[in-house]
Amino acid sequence: MVPSLKYVIFFFIILFQSQIGISFSSQDSHHPLNSLTPLELSEVGSIVKSHCNGNVSFHYVGLDEPNKSHILRWISNPHSAPPRRVLVLARIHGATHEIIVDLSRSSVVSDRLYQGNGYPLLNIEEQVAASSLATSYPPFVASIEKRGLKMEELVCMSFSVGWFGEEKSRRMVRVMCYYLDGTVNMYMRPVEGITVAVDLDRMEIIGFRDRVVVPVPKAQGTDYTGSTPSDADDEDKDAPLCHFTFDGHVLRWGGWEMHVSFDMRAGLVISMASIYDGERDEQRIVMYRGFLSELFIPYMDLTEEWYYRTFFDSGELGFGVSAVPLVPLKDCPKNAVFVDAYFTSGDGMPARTSNAFCIFEKHAGDITEVRPESSLVVRMVSAVGNYDYIVDWEFKQTGIIRVTVGMTGLLEVKGSVYTHKDQMHEEVYGTILAENTIGVNHDHFLIFNLDLDVDGEENSLIKTDLKTSRVSRDVSLRRSYWRAESEAAKTESDARIRLGSGATMVSVVNPSKKTKIGNNVGYKLVPGSVAGALLSDDDYAQIRGAFTKYNVWVTPYNKTEKWAGGLCTDRSHGDDSLATWTKRDREIENKDIVLWYTLGFHHVPCQEDFPIMPTLTESFELRPSNFFEHNPTLYKQEMGMKIHADSNFSVQ
Amino acid sequence: MVPSLKYVIFFFIILFQSQIGISFSSQDSHHPLNSLTPLELSEVGSIVKSHCNGNVSFHYVGLDEPNKSHILRWISNPHSAPPRRVLVLARIHGATHEIIVDLSRSSVVSDRLYQGNGYPLLNIEEQVAASSLATSYPPFVASIEKRGLKMEELVCMSFSVGWFGEEKSRRMVRVMCYYLDGTVNMYMRPVEGITVAVDLDRMEIIGFRDRVVVPVPKAQGTDYTGSTPSDADDEDKDAPLCHFTFDGHVLRWGGWEMHVSFDMRAGLVISMASIYDGERDEQRIVMYRGFLSELFIPYMDLTEEWYYRTFFDSGELGFGVSAVPLVPLKDCPKNAVFVDAYFTSGDGMPARTSNAFCIFEKHAGDITEVRPESSLVVRMVSAVGNYDYIVDWEFKQTGIIRVTVGMTGLLEVKGSVYTHKDQMHEEVYGTILAENTIGVNHDHFLIFNLDLDVDGEENSLIKTDLKTSRVSRDVSLRRSYWRAESEAAKTESDARIRLGSGATMVSVVNPSKKTKIGNNVGYKLVPGSVAGALLSDDDYAQIRGAFTKYNVWVTPYNKTEKWAGGLCTDRSHGDDSLATWTKRDREIENKDIVLWYTLGFHHVPCQEDFPIMPTLTESFELRPSNFFEHNPTLYKQEMGMKIHADSNFSVQ
Repeated sequence: MVPSLKYVIFFFIILFQSQIGISFSSQDSHHPLNSLTPLELSEVGSIVKSHCNGNVSFHYVGLDEPNKSHILRWISNPHSAPPRRVLVLARIHGATHEIIVDLSRSSVVSDRLYQGNGYPLLNIEEQVAASSLATSYPPFVASIEKRGLKMEELVCMSFSVGWFGEEKSRRMVRVMCYYLDGTVNMYMRPVEGITVAVDLDRMEIIGFRDRVVVPVPKAQGTDYTGSTPSDADDEDKDAPLCHFTFDGHVLRWGGWEMHVSFDMRAGLVISMASIYDGERDEQRIVMYRGFLSELFIPYMDLTEEWYYRTFFDSGELGFGVSAVPLVPLKDCPKNAVFVDAYFTSGDGMPARTSNAFCIFEKHAGDITEVRPESSLVVRMVSAVGNYDYIVDWEFKQTGIIRVTVGMTGLLEVKGSVYTHKDQMHEEVYGTILAENTIGVNHDHFLIFNLDLDVDGEENSLIKTDLKTSRVSRDVSLRRSYWRAESEAAKTESDARIRLGSGATMVSVVNPSKKTKIGNNVGYKLVPGSVAGALLSDDDYAQIRGAFTKYNVWVTPYNKTEKWAGGLCTDRSHGDDSLATWTKRDREIENKDIVLWYTLGFHHVPCQEDFPIMPTLTESFELRPSNFFEHNPTLYKQEMGMKIHADSNFSVQ
Repeated sequence: MVPSLKYVIFFFIILFQSQIGISFSSQDSHHPLNSLTPLELSEVGSIVKSHCNGNVSFHYVGLDEPNKSHILRWISNPHSAPPRRVLVLARIHGATHEIIVDLSRSSVVSDRLYQGNGYPLLNIEEQVAASSLATSYPPFVASIEKRGLKMEELVCMSFSVGWFGEEKSRRMVRVMCYYLDGTVNMYMRPVEGITVAVDLDRMEIIGFRDRVVVPVPKAQGTDYTGSTPSDADDEDKDAPLCHFTFDGHVLRWGGWEMHVSFDMRAGLVISMASIYDGERDEQRIVMYRGFLSELFIPYMDLTEEWYYRTFFDSGELGFGVSAVPLVPLKDCPKNAVFVDAYFTSGDGMPARTSNAFCIFEKHAGDITEVRPESSLVVRMVSAVGNYDYIVDWEFKQTGIIRVTVGMTGLLEVKGSVYTHKDQMHEEVYGTILAENTIGVNHDHFLIFNLDLDVDGEENSLIKTDLKTSRVSRDVSLRRSYWRAESEAAKTESDARIRLGSGATMVSVVNPSKKTKIGNNVGYKLVPGSVAGALLSDDDYAQIRGAFTKYNVWVTPYNKTEKWAGGLCTDRSHGDDSLATWTKRDREIENKDIVLWYTLGFHHVPCQEDFPIMPTLTESFELRPSNFFEHNPTLYKQEMGMKIHADSNFSVQ
């Protein structure tokens, strides 16, 4: 949702680091999908600033990814590298510009005024500035004093405001404040009742209302750092030496090979994941691209200070920008390899998040008849406001890709006059968690962009329905059985699927590739929690987050269709989104297709979520389904790649 | 389904061990729920044999559990131990007897003729005898020779036959044979087309048909032991010292206290699980009892040799009897504590499965904002025929109970004439996995009996539906939001619930206990895979496995209602089952209730499942929901129980 206190602190550290660590070494590796280096980010900043005479605010800087065909050509002929281009979303004189910088030519090659609805990611500087504006605004100071609160104990943050049908809107945030005064967990001490609206472009207060005074929840009982971990210590983190190689971008382990990169919006991006097939003696592509495209977190409170909270954590704030530095031994096991991430801050300067990813081998402790399963994990943790999302991409020797999202951190609570449930006779939109503290009901929807290229680009989505057939008495003593009826989705509308009953299965196959015995090679989706949208279709938040209406969508590959909530998500109208793109109902059979999967769940808070939530873990799998001739772990893997990785390798 | 080769081998080892290890020491601990000791089993065997002059076949021997009220009285006054009674299901002169033995009086206190439909668990001896009968039956030998197969390479097993509307039935099995001849994985080499039916009481062949000759799938490619584990070795299994105490039955860790016992039908039984509440300084009961009540695995093939395969793995074969000895470091981590299990073999003699459970502390490697989560796991692995089920009961310091079932092992495949999919123009009921090998479609349904006693016996089931409410324009700019509408189930019919959409939530609360701020204390069910029945209601298999129609059921506590498929499940008619008990529609509000949850999924095999399946893992959680005042991990736990467990303690 919004930048957390710890985030704001990190931010300054990062800026500091990046300002002094100016001598970035250049990247040795030249894979066209590599993350932008600090040097490149710095160069982009300079080029764009000089292009528009300095009057620019940076909101997104990311690789302008070459077309897939260019990448594939480059693989067969590494001398024909596609041009290294960068997409910049910037605000210049109150307008959004989509600027393409060509780094090989050191120049701007296009500068397009964005004409659509919505705005790019908020940058950190403007969020901090908006908060500061509020805390120095005399009426606001008076409101705080009226409540008997100390200004110096206040921590304020900027919240995106959504869109509720306005034809014209401006870039704005609302500033919401929390109270420290004796706690480290200010999230549990909201100062309710005051609305401060700030215009971001003009950086001025455009609305203020002190509607109602609500007690600030007590500090007592909100500290979550007081007790020491009771059982776990460093000794617990013993793990074996890992067996993978990683050159900063290309990761190889157990037959898997993939490219790992960072994007300030998406965070972790997995590209060109392929697996070695021992029987064919060939590296076979599975997934051209996989990343978390958007997170939609609508709250279910209608009051003036809450109704607008319908956050898009990736499109409004950046899931990558929100990555937190991982702590060796605490956040990742012994022998994990850590990778730093770089992004552009609002002024165009590069900033660093150290240890933004970690990579480690995991030993499940699970057993099988023949061998313990091990897997390779690439982990990133994003602290988007109060919530921490732990995202693990896990690759198994069985060919399975498992994506696990752990949610923990702090609830977004609401101050309330109530100190006991018996006093509550009106709708409070949630659960009373402690005195004066309501945990507001909300949803979490995470949509993944999974560009599967199962054994090649041209793939089809197969929907398999398990259908009960009646059996007549002359055939069998059975009265029924189920059959698996499979059909390839012809167009996008065929591929919008609600899961949940377990009787519908989804897989992506390559219609022109078969196993020796004639099955189409494929990968199937094994879904996790499949909760879907509960908001009505005409609700503005739902119009913007319409991708939650189905668990599965398929689009033909189009490099511009990356963000399920649209390119400019802040205050978007939902007209540039997965739900609208697919209205064209394009053909998707035997095409280069992208699978979209939404992991969702509804959260009715309970007291155990206070003052910090126990981790809630959800996951889904992409499992080979007739991709291999047999269980692939039974081939001897002789890839000669089992050397020890450097113990703490970071990209510089 | 049926005893596996490895099982048959274990069986002989076990018998051998138990015959020589005759000097069992008596049990020191006297908890009335303790597993039956070898000495007790031996005594029960002698008492029953003498009671009926030796002419008896033992099918189930288990604790005749005292009524819950007796147990609870015993806890407050340990001098009033309830009488130690044992339930024996035995076959005597072709009839099933329910015999109660009182061990304190060393006598049979009741012997009731079972008048209902169905038969008790098959015992191992009769399964082995039936298989031997087939292999010495001349027409069968001729059929094998006709196929050019060698008798000495044949491994035969007895399969339960289900019930298909017959008014009168007898105890029988069908014998199904597999071919070794060059493989260790005979499950991949079925000898199809031959039906041998054996009457178990008379132990004679009552049916034989050699309907069709089908090629036996090749041995090539079926070996799953050939390659060595590529990465994992003993070093990988390093784990910290664990911090729990276990006296053979009572397990204490991290505030949790519970009783762990073994039943030859259910396997692992968790009783009286309670957790220390640091704020109240009190041990609070959560679950009086939890165990896997039944497994239903119907196959979807109508042919003569397959239609009847609608297995009830617990009620027909015993999930406990099928437990396999766990191998230290391979199946359970370093410092795990192992527990042996004892059961009665068909002749009334005690038999042992060594290392049937293991108990260990697990460190998730997951991270939270403040501490690595650790948990305590009690594990059992049951090899029911071809499938291996890994069942983990995991207890977390957050108060969460997580039950995870890993499925691996070998598919039940069918021999076929086909060597390529293109040849197949008829229904084959599954997927071609290799030449002459079909993986037949099937379901797995596992139903758990969860007698929650949340902070006391009287509980209610709360069904919470998230309902969308429309919002008028004068209230908010929102058009909709969802509310959590909760209602207590009054009677059993209110508590039959299909899950799947994520918008229905289930919890068990104690209506007379509230948190300080007024929420009802409770535990919620966080379901895993919620696939439901696809067979038609009138299908005989579905009549027997009707508990699969809903994911959730609730019954009032009744100590005789333990087995969702009925007490005598083999050839049952479904008239003694969860679905029929609940037709009485008893009151369940503010009563001592039992929650039943079915974890289910449909399995359409794929080539990667051949010759051994990658583990498929499903789980569900019981999560405290307003049970504690706060996140319980934030209290300092000062229970003085963190001493090291003995490194390898086994019950003797």
